[in-house]
Amino acid sequence: MRQIESSTCFGGRQIRYRHDSETLNCTMSFGVYLPPAAEKNKVPFLIWLSGLTGRDNTFPFLAGAQRYAAERGIAIVTPDTSPRGEGVPDDPDGAYDFGLSAGFYLNATELPWQKNYHMYDYVVDEFSTLIVNELPIDSARQSIFGHSMGGHGAITIALKNPGRFRSVSAMAPICNPMDCPWGVKAFNNYLGPDRATWRQYDATKLVATSEERLPLLIDQGDEDEFLEEQLGLDELQSALSEYDYPATVRMRGGYDHGYYFVASFIGEHIDFHANYL
Amino acid sequence: MRQIESSTCFGGRQIRYRHDSETLNCTMSFGVYLPPAAEKNKVPFLIWLSGLTGRDNTFPFLAGAQRYAAERGIAIVTPDTSPRGEGVPDDPDGAYDFGLSAGFYLNATELPWQKNYHMYDYVVDEFSTLIVNELPIDSARQSIFGHSMGGHGAITIALKNPGRFRSVSAMAPICNPMDCPWGVKAFNNYLGPDRATWRQYDATKLVATSEERLPLLIDQGDEDEFLEEQLGLDELQSALSEYDYPATVRMRGGYDHGYYFVASFIGEHIDFHANYL
Repeated sequence: MRQIESSTCFGGRQIRYRHDSETLNCTMSFGVYLPPAAEKNKVPFLIWLSGLTGRDNTFPFLAGAQRYAAERGIAIVTPDTSPRGEGVPDDPDGAYDFGLSAGFYLNATELPWQKNYHMYDYVVDEFSTLIVNELPIDSARQSIFGHSMGGHGAITIALKNPGRFRSVSAMAPICNPMDCPWGVKAFNNYLGPDRATWRQYDATKLVATSEERLPLLIDQGDEDEFLEEQLGLDELQSALSEYDYPATVRMRGGYDHGYYFVASFIGEHIDFHANYL
Repeated sequence: MRQIESSTCFGGRQIRYRHDSETLNCTMSFGVYLPPAAEKNKVPFLIWLSGLTGRDNTFPFLAGAQRYAAERGIAIVTPDTSPRGEGVPDDPDGAYDFGLSAGFYLNATELPWQKNYHMYDYVVDEFSTLIVNELPIDSARQSIFGHSMGGHGAITIALKNPGRFRSVSAMAPICNPMDCPWGVKAFNNYLGPDRATWRQYDATKLVATSEERLPLLIDQGDEDEFLEEQLGLDELQSALSEYDYPATVRMRGGYDHGYYFVASFIGEHIDFHANYL
């Protein structure tokens, strides 16, 4: 991997790297914030997964998380939201909710997506191996969080990989993609019409079968324009309740779906994870 | 003025407005962050002026200032960096350092710029009158700050309007535009070749004649890629010293010119102004 940008930020370094991904068959960028504490020792880390329209540098630019990460001595790594580059297919209409910036953290099985769209394997295997090998971070102390489509990614990846993460949190996550327009469009295209294959990427369904009981925190704005049609929080809460999965879900009065919401509560999410890291 | 966006952020509101500007002969956008305290009373406010390539929403997105503004009960208003829209002329080569996003907070006298490029009058008169009339902010308690070209704008506007502001600060400001490539290009085009007319917009020159002795804070990264060729901090410091103008100038080890630098110290700048507001 090669460093393409680096800036001092709150006494640490916000760095951007590029590397060739075998999993995705393309070149990928990712970001990492290394707190000042990383100069001396390996530090615990958080994987942040961004939502639709996001990229690897969306969160570093917009969330204002570096201040909290510096204070807590935690690194934050930010992979991209989809494969990129020449030859990577996109939504034929250029829609924001599918294709580029909309990889949904799954492994596509359908043409023409299956050559590149393996964001699940990328995040869980290739990317995670790369960062642990190359950065001053401690693989035994990691947690995962994300926003919207990335909240879906964080919860599903945590549930499917018991023992790896210490905690998981999400801001305005897509909780039940099998039953919302964004998810149905993406899963139909990436996975084909057999809904049985969709369940492996649906947080609400995974709760039933997960061996994992991680500390789970969800923040949700009550003026989120996507809450009713797309996010499926009620369905996830029912499943959490049914399967006795402990979780903290907080409704935040007045907040919408955007990054001003994320920025307002990112400090509390980092504090939450710090308790377990 | 009409509201075009509004999001809850740190308990307050980040709002974007649009209005028709008589001064600039075009439609302009601007941002305001209103802290929670503004729901009950008029609050003191800061005018932030952005740098080259910035817009009215650059600072709200990237600086992470809302947290500090909420804590301190201070509003932050963010005008655009240039006139915009159909018919507003731009750099013929589309360069980033002149024309759109590069109004330099001056009143152009030369064709074809003089019809629209009156950012000095816009910020000092039309915009300031509008926000004080329409927003819950207290005109008796205002200060001004900015970054790079906007640091130049903040210092020159403060020096030229004694009595209006309580304090001024800048991050990596252009201090001596008459003698740097960015400034020479802009002033030649906007003001014509007579350098005598340039002095009214040069902070280093204005220190000699200013009646104002405002609290002044400057932060500067020592790895700023523009420091040597463009910013002229040494020249300003010499003038401040020669004319006994008290100022705090802090060199920040390792920081570059970008928004990760701004974000790292914006809290300290807001604290600085809060002492006087």
